[in-house]
Amino acid sequence: MNASSGEQAQHQDFLQDLAELSQIGATPAGGVDRQAATIEDGEARQWLSHWFRSHDFSVVVDEVGNLFGVVTFDTSAPYVLAGSHLDSQPTAGRLDGAYGVLTAAYAVKNVRDKALQDGIKPLVNFVVVDWFNEEGSRFAPSVMGSGVYARKLAPQAVLATEDRSGTSVKQALADIGYLGSETPPDAVAYAEIHVEQGRLLESENVDIGLVISNWVVCKFKVTIKGEQAHTGTADMDDRRDALVGAAKVLLGVRDFAIGPNADQLLASVGEVAVYPNVPGVVASKAVLSLDVRAPEEEFLKQQLDVLKEKILLACESEGLSVHIPEMVMRSSVRFSESGIAVGRKAAESCDLSYKRMCTRAGHDAINMNTIVPTLLAFVPSKSGISHCESEDTDKDDLLKGLDFFCEVLSDVALNGAFY
Amino acid sequence: MNASSGEQAQHQDFLQDLAELSQIGATPAGGVDRQAATIEDGEARQWLSHWFRSHDFSVVVDEVGNLFGVVTFDTSAPYVLAGSHLDSQPTAGRLDGAYGVLTAAYAVKNVRDKALQDGIKPLVNFVVVDWFNEEGSRFAPSVMGSGVYARKLAPQAVLATEDRSGTSVKQALADIGYLGSETPPDAVAYAEIHVEQGRLLESENVDIGLVISNWVVCKFKVTIKGEQAHTGTADMDDRRDALVGAAKVLLGVRDFAIGPNADQLLASVGEVAVYPNVPGVVASKAVLSLDVRAPEEEFLKQQLDVLKEKILLACESEGLSVHIPEMVMRSSVRFSESGIAVGRKAAESCDLSYKRMCTRAGHDAINMNTIVPTLLAFVPSKSGISHCESEDTDKDDLLKGLDFFCEVLSDVALNGAFY
Repeated sequence: MNASSGEQAQHQDFLQDLAELSQIGATPAGGVDRQAATIEDGEARQWLSHWFRSHDFSVVVDEVGNLFGVVTFDTSAPYVLAGSHLDSQPTAGRLDGAYGVLTAAYAVKNVRDKALQDGIKPLVNFVVVDWFNEEGSRFAPSVMGSGVYARKLAPQAVLATEDRSGTSVKQALADIGYLGSETPPDAVAYAEIHVEQGRLLESENVDIGLVISNWVVCKFKVTIKGEQAHTGTADMDDRRDALVGAAKVLLGVRDFAIGPNADQLLASVGEVAVYPNVPGVVASKAVLSLDVRAPEEEFLKQQLDVLKEKILLACESEGLSVHIPEMVMRSSVRFSESGIAVGRKAAESCDLSYKRMCTRAGHDAINMNTIVPTLLAFVPSKSGISHCESEDTDKDDLLKGLDFFCEVLSDVALNGAFY
Repeated sequence: MNASSGEQAQHQDFLQDLAELSQIGATPAGGVDRQAATIEDGEARQWLSHWFRSHDFSVVVDEVGNLFGVVTFDTSAPYVLAGSHLDSQPTAGRLDGAYGVLTAAYAVKNVRDKALQDGIKPLVNFVVVDWFNEEGSRFAPSVMGSGVYARKLAPQAVLATEDRSGTSVKQALADIGYLGSETPPDAVAYAEIHVEQGRLLESENVDIGLVISNWVVCKFKVTIKGEQAHTGTADMDDRRDALVGAAKVLLGVRDFAIGPNADQLLASVGEVAVYPNVPGVVASKAVLSLDVRAPEEEFLKQQLDVLKEKILLACESEGLSVHIPEMVMRSSVRFSESGIAVGRKAAESCDLSYKRMCTRAGHDAINMNTIVPTLLAFVPSKSGISHCESEDTDKDDLLKGLDFFCEVLSDVALNGAFY
């Protein structure tokens, strides 16, 4: 890359800060483990709060632990929000979320430095955000903090949500010192940059992905019930083994998604809860957390009907009862064309290749896009590995993303673009 | 049943005490939940200790929490041990173990009362025992307390064993006040009565089962490893999903046992541990607890080789690695013919039908039979339901078992039989 000495210094600082941030909750295999409102998440927040303060951003924490760094140029001007999340899945990659938060912070700092240097007054103020609990591994559902900001979730319900050990969000946030009471500025637009979590950009050798829509997602828990029995005495024919039913459903879910619709369907079981789950007892209950995704709502609906039938048949064949709740879908939304236009312009200014694309994954940007014009952009991810310690992105791609995002916020600052 | 007024009173007291004991750790569905060294197990032990003291049995607690009630007629005479266990599986039946402990206590009391009444001095002393952790659900392995008494397990290793939350046996026993330091008398013989946990006696309408041998048991943990991935983005073909491997193994284990050898084989997975076990991540690790049983060691060995091959193939087909440890078998032992002879004689005296039979389940009596002549007897169990709250035995069958066991201990006391 060719970069000016100012850019070079910024690149160096950015990579150094990213390396420092990656040490918080670091795992031996090179990833991080910073589930929402754990001690490690608290340490990452402390690190970011310190970064904000030492760069003259004011720190704001709202009632559900969203952490904001505010830069105000003109109290009468609107605020543009940019960021992502610092929490992670268990033993996950160091870039997922953290890259977007740090890039947003650097891009806002860059705008301010340039404005000062050039004696220009930006048309908007900025807020950098670390959303609470994007991942949803400790507390369900995911994208929790942005859900409250976008008024899709009630703060009281969020605060009462408990993890497996019965600790509430409210308690967990208080424990790490991030149960706030302040109100962040209202945003007129939102921008987020993220590692792709797929391998489209890598395989097509494209620098920047501009997200035009998200896949439809349906998450639900299937509860299978049988009857306890003694593993050492009950005749095989007499058993109603909930784990055997769970195994049939698990394979059914997988096989369903590798059929003729493989490129249009993802189906997974990531979590299983078994009762009583001891060596000497045939299980009486198994709860499976399903995650099914497709690009189009109508198609997913049809496929879910097929899957439901498969699950019912599998359990019936084992003499087991099964409960499948009403399936609620997270819809596909079109991302703001004005946001995409800003992204396109920024990529062109930076001489980077770009591509309109869908996202299969959920993002805080999907929540934000329901209330304000939103840009969600991706940088490539090596082999698309995600939610895994071996997640990685080339250093050059990270820096291209930083330059791109600086250009996006500069454009917004100078031209009031996209909101 | 025809019973003398003394017998009738004893029957009434026994049923009342059994009902009282069943209230400790009682579950709404009529079972009990008294895992080893939990508060509920502690309460059951308190109840039994109180029973011992109020019936002039001396209470002894050894270093691994085995609880003994000792009745000495002649300090120079040998001791015969009788009992079972008060701990239970999670949400299990109220009779499993508890019936045997209470029956032994009543039978010893009966011997003493009769000896006093008839002015006879018994030839042996008695010890009633509640073995620590027969079930092995909280702390593995099972039959722990009798394993130490029979010198198969080292006390220090047992005390250091931890449950899933990291609490040691030593700590858990101290917490409920049952970490003892006393040494119980050496036994010259052991007798135990238990509910069948199968339906052979019920289906053949037999009163008493006399156990001649146990099935060979092999318990081991299979560890399957894949790689974490994002449930919402990773292509199905790219995944190495440990849960999918676990499902294949689970079904493989079950199908293996319902094949042509169904009457000679039991195979189960009762426990699964998944990592990271969250909704948004394809699992990287699954550990399955297997329990495989057959009547004969050579046959089980052959079958385990078949099963091992199936497991390896299932995991290989999913690109997963798998670790199967060396398989250690709990051998089949022949029960003492002198014990069986005492049982036969007692059944005949009581005018009860009896049958020589095998046990599929593990019992403390199997440990005891390795050091002293041992009698293990069964009463029928309704539909053979076990390790389940709906476990039950007809009241009449429970009382027939009590009369039978009183006769066994009387015979030992008067004739010094079977040791």
